[in-house]
Amino acid sequence: MKKIAIKMATSLLILFIRKGVLQSLVALLAFAKPSKAFAKPSKKYVDARKKALELLEEAIRKEKIDEKILPIVKKLNSKFDFFTTSSCSGRIAIMEIPCAGIKKKAKFLGKWHRKVEVKEIKGAIEKAKKGEIWFLVQSPIIHVSTFSMENARKLLVIANQSGFKYSSIKSFNGRIVVEILGTERIDAPIGKDGKIYGGGDYIDMLTDIANFMMERMEANLRKLERNIDCL
Amino acid sequence: MKKIAIKMATSLLILFIRKGVLQSLVALLAFAKPSKAFAKPSKKYVDARKKALELLEEAIRKEKIDEKILPIVKKLNSKFDFFTTSSCSGRIAIMEIPCAGIKKKAKFLGKWHRKVEVKEIKGAIEKAKKGEIWFLVQSPIIHVSTFSMENARKLLVIANQSGFKYSSIKSFNGRIVVEILGTERIDAPIGKDGKIYGGGDYIDMLTDIANFMMERMEANLRKLERNIDCL
Repeated sequence: MKKIAIKMATSLLILFIRKGVLQSLVALLAFAKPSKAFAKPSKKYVDARKKALELLEEAIRKEKIDEKILPIVKKLNSKFDFFTTSSCSGRIAIMEIPCAGIKKKAKFLGKWHRKVEVKEIKGAIEKAKKGEIWFLVQSPIIHVSTFSMENARKLLVIANQSGFKYSSIKSFNGRIVVEILGTERIDAPIGKDGKIYGGGDYIDMLTDIANFMMERMEANLRKLERNIDCL
Repeated sequence: MKKIAIKMATSLLILFIRKGVLQSLVALLAFAKPSKAFAKPSKKYVDARKKALELLEEAIRKEKIDEKILPIVKKLNSKFDFFTTSSCSGRIAIMEIPCAGIKKKAKFLGKWHRKVEVKEIKGAIEKAKKGEIWFLVQSPIIHVSTFSMENARKLLVIANQSGFKYSSIKSFNGRIVVEILGTERIDAPIGKDGKIYGGGDYIDMLTDIANFMMERMEANLRKLERNIDCL
């Protein structure tokens, strides 16, 4: 009698599996609220966030964070679901690369987190000695850690809506890192071994375009600051 | 007899649930191999993949896919876990932007998926009429869809190891899209309204740097092709 019952119970279980009842149960248990189920911050996250906030406090005290991006960084870090690990409000720069392709040895001859004047650019270029000279515009960039893909998705949407259309997820090995990044960019080799190829007119044009991009970057930062309230 | 057996089977099932046996079974089915358990491709994925492969076949027939990237695209699409939606093996280009910042109205005066000669660049520049003239180097780019974060993670690791260090996840709303992207890049405004600021020497230098980058991009593509075997 017992044997028959066990056999029947097993058959029933197999039937359930075949009919998909168990599968539904599994699905219900495992997938019912995926965003909540997977969105538990680990101790590692909490510790990393604490550490990051301490470093941020120090950086703010030492005035190492550009004031144009500070309100955004503060807003993001006020939310438990996020913390920032690095940020730059966007810049115009003159860089010298002594050996082609070896960016580690590159050095900045000048950098500005604001619009520039032609004479500032020319002043920086005058310091060039050996290697390629590059004129750069780099878009604002913020690295934001979070603990769930749902959070990352929300932040990506907001970043995109604010004009930061090169935003993406850079790493999710243990921690999810959203890179907020704009599209404004100039990477222009303009000379070599202290010699500029373009002449004065060329530097004027580059500076005009760079300043135009800087205005757009600043407008997008203001948009982002407003939109973070919707997170 | 049947009734008793069913009753017993039900009791047994309840007992299983109470004792946590079913729970373990559920856990085993759902969490034993999390990457596999959650990595169930949806019908939407299967349909999208089928459609993408058809479009790819057509593109190959029409020789619209650059042969340098074709082996990589073929390898990726031979794996059920992935399919590509767009690809470019990297290029050198001359672009004209009639209105500042409105890239939609930009047009290519010349583009090459290989090393170029200075005379080709100069030939393209001669076609310039109105607006900013840009010299571009664009890194190889491949958009790869997949259905699990575990797959995306694996592909990101391989892309990074092959030198594509700007790779990231671009979208995961319904579908996960990995963007494989290299670091080589030039975005240099070089003139305006048909006039070039840098002169011949400048174009020589830009072409040298662009060709150097093209070599590195080709080497990285070969690395990527080999490394995909480890997926």
